[in-house]
This record gives sequence, structure tokens and C-alpha cells, in this order.
Amino acid sequence: MKIVIIGATGTLGKKVSFAFSQKHEIIRVGKSSGDIQADITDEASIKQMFDKIGSFDALISTAGQGPFAPLNKMTGENFKNGLLDKLLGQINLVLIGQHYINKNGSFTLTSGILSDHPVAAGSALSTINGGLNSFIYAASAEFSNGIRINAVSPNVVEDSPSYFDSFPGEIPVSMDKVVKAFEKSVLGIITGQVIKVF
Amino acid sequence: MKIVIIGATGTLGKKVSFAFSQKHEIIRVGKSSGDIQADITDEASIKQMFDKIGSFDALISTAGQGPFAPLNKMTGENFKNGLLDKLLGQINLVLIGQHYINKNGSFTLTSGILSDHPVAAGSALSTINGGLNSFIYAASAEFSNGIRINAVSPNVVEDSPSYFDSFPGEIPVSMDKVVKAFEKSVLGIITGQVIKVF
Repeated sequence: MKIVIIGATGTLGKKVSFAFSQKHEIIRVGKSSGDIQADITDEASIKQMFDKIGSFDALISTAGQGPFAPLNKMTGENFKNGLLDKLLGQINLVLIGQHYINKNGSFTLTSGILSDHPVAAGSALSTINGGLNSFIYAASAEFSNGIRINAVSPNVVEDSPSYFDSFPGEIPVSMDKVVKAFEKSVLGIITGQVIKVF
Repeated sequence: MKIVIIGATGTLGKKVSFAFSQKHEIIRVGKSSGDIQADITDEASIKQMFDKIGSFDALISTAGQGPFAPLNKMTGENFKNGLLDKLLGQINLVLIGQHYINKNGSFTLTSGILSDHPVAAGSALSTINGGLNSFIYAASAEFSNGIRINAVSPNVVEDSPSYFDSFPGEIPVSMDKVVKAFEKSVLGIITGQVIKVF
């Protein structure tokens, strides 16, 4: 299977890339590293990336950022930047990628626990993740040709101890468990699912 | 109670404004009509609006648009315009309005059924509504001074027959029922709730 991994050089992307590379052809995409470079906040950059890659069987995105800021200090500009990055950026991978993906291919995006369980200063990421989850439900129902789409929604992960204090009461999950969720989406048959790893 | 209603001259906003005007002071805001004009996609315009209004007790938004387009024809630009309008526009009413609202005041935004029940061509509105719902959960948990926030999430309404065919299987809800949901949010005690009228 030819698998495109966006965010492949990040904390999560590296582990996901390694796992899939054992049995599949992987194209690692990063903003400034990897096999191919692309900026998900720039539609032209995404299109150039797909033109280089050509057709593919699966796309995994572990990319995208959103701001952490207390609600009473959050600005519209800051909020907007998050919406255009982790939310619209990942959605644009699908909107553009749908014209390059092979029959029976799949998209797997990354949302996160904050859609359901907010934390202090996390309102933008809650919004982003909630939006992504509903996009998954909607897009899955419109695809044809066996195209599938899911999101993996992780809790804070064991490899990011600097975030632990921001997620009080949450039990950090192992990277292996998050990687398994991506395997379920890419190698399984489900579609329109938000796979919660929390 | 001094209640600001954004989108007050729209189909839903008119009914909501009429209902609350029986017992409260209403400030009707429209893009090009109403007591005060404001464009929710423009932060400066929102700030000017609040400077004119001064402090208030409740804000209701029935404003904001998103594009309808089949997924395979949806463009990033079209999608973005929806995110910046119904999603970020309503969120900016809260981010800016939080600095003007009175103690024990409330915000009530409008999301919609598509976050949970997608329809053809509705992926952008699903995303917008899902994002709004998670914003409500997150923002409610960060407010102090008794400030509350909820969303009303209506099904297709009886007064919009031109939309009926786009919502197969849905039973259109009465405007009276939707208005009651706004009353529950503004006059009641709940916070962090998505009041589903479907």
C-alpha cells in the first residue's frame, strides 16, 4: 500500500511512520523535512505535494496546530490561526486529496480529546477537534468508490510529559495504543468513525 | 434585561426578537438593518458594535452562514469562508463580548443538527456546528462571574420549506419550539449545554 503521512517527522508522526513502514511504501511529508515538504495552511503547497506524489492508497495526517490561551486573553486572530491550521489544513488535505486517492483508499486525520473533555486554555483546540469529528461523519457519507475517512482522537500521550499538567486527571496513553488506532483506520474497514484513544 | 440579538432581522432572529421584546430591552443587530449594524466576520465591526451598546445582560446570535456544496466539488476557499463566518464570527462575538457582558450574563449561539446528522452537500456546516458545540463546552468551563454560554441546535425549521428536500427524513420543527430553546438558555440557569431541537 502507498501511504502518505503528513506530519511524519513530528512526535506522533515518527512512530506512525515507523509502524507502517514495516509492510508498506511510505511517503513522509513535513513542513521543512521528510521526503516531500508541504505547508497544510497553503492550498497551493498541498496541490504541489499531491502532484509530486501522484495517486496513493492512504493518507494519514498527524499535522496541525492550535493555540493554547486562557479564554479571557484569547484573540480572534489567534483563534483564526488555529482554525486555518489544524482544522482547515487537515480538511484541505481531504478536499484536494480526494482527486488523487485510489479506489478503496482512506484518509485518517488527527483530532483529540479536547472536543469532549475541555481543559483550561484549550477552547480553540476543543473547537478544532469538534469540527474535525463532525467533518469525518459528514465526509464519510459523501464518498464513493470505497473511499473511507476516520479520525484518531488521542488523549495526551506518554511521550509528551510537558503537557501532563495541562490535562489534570487524564491518564496519558501510550504511543503504541495511538499507533494501533491509525492501523485500525488504515488497514481495517471502518469509515465515518472517530477512534477515541482515551 | 438588556439583550443583544445578532441576526435579529433574519427568519429565526425576527421570531426570537419578538418573543424577548415582550419583557426585555432588545438591541437588534443586523448586517445592514436593525438598530445597529455589524459584520460578524470583521472583528473591528464587532468591537464598534459593543462600544455603541456598552454593557449588556445577554447576547443571542442567530447569525452566520456556511456553504452548501457536494464534497467532491467543495473548495478550500468556500470551506474557509464558512469557517470564518458562522464559526469564527459567532466565537468572536463571545471573545470580544466577554469584555462587555455584565456579571451573571449569558451568551447563546446557534449551531445546528448537521454536527450529528450529516446531509448531502453539508460537510462545511457539519464542521462549523461541531466546532461550535465543542466551543460551548470549553468556554463555559472557563467563564467566571456567573457568565453562562449555551448553543441552540435546531433541526430544519417549519418556516424554511425550501430546505425540506435537503433534510430527508427530518421532521421540521416549529419556530416556537426553537424560540423556547433560546428562552431556556437566556432565562434559565444552564451553561455549557447544546440545546438540541431535533
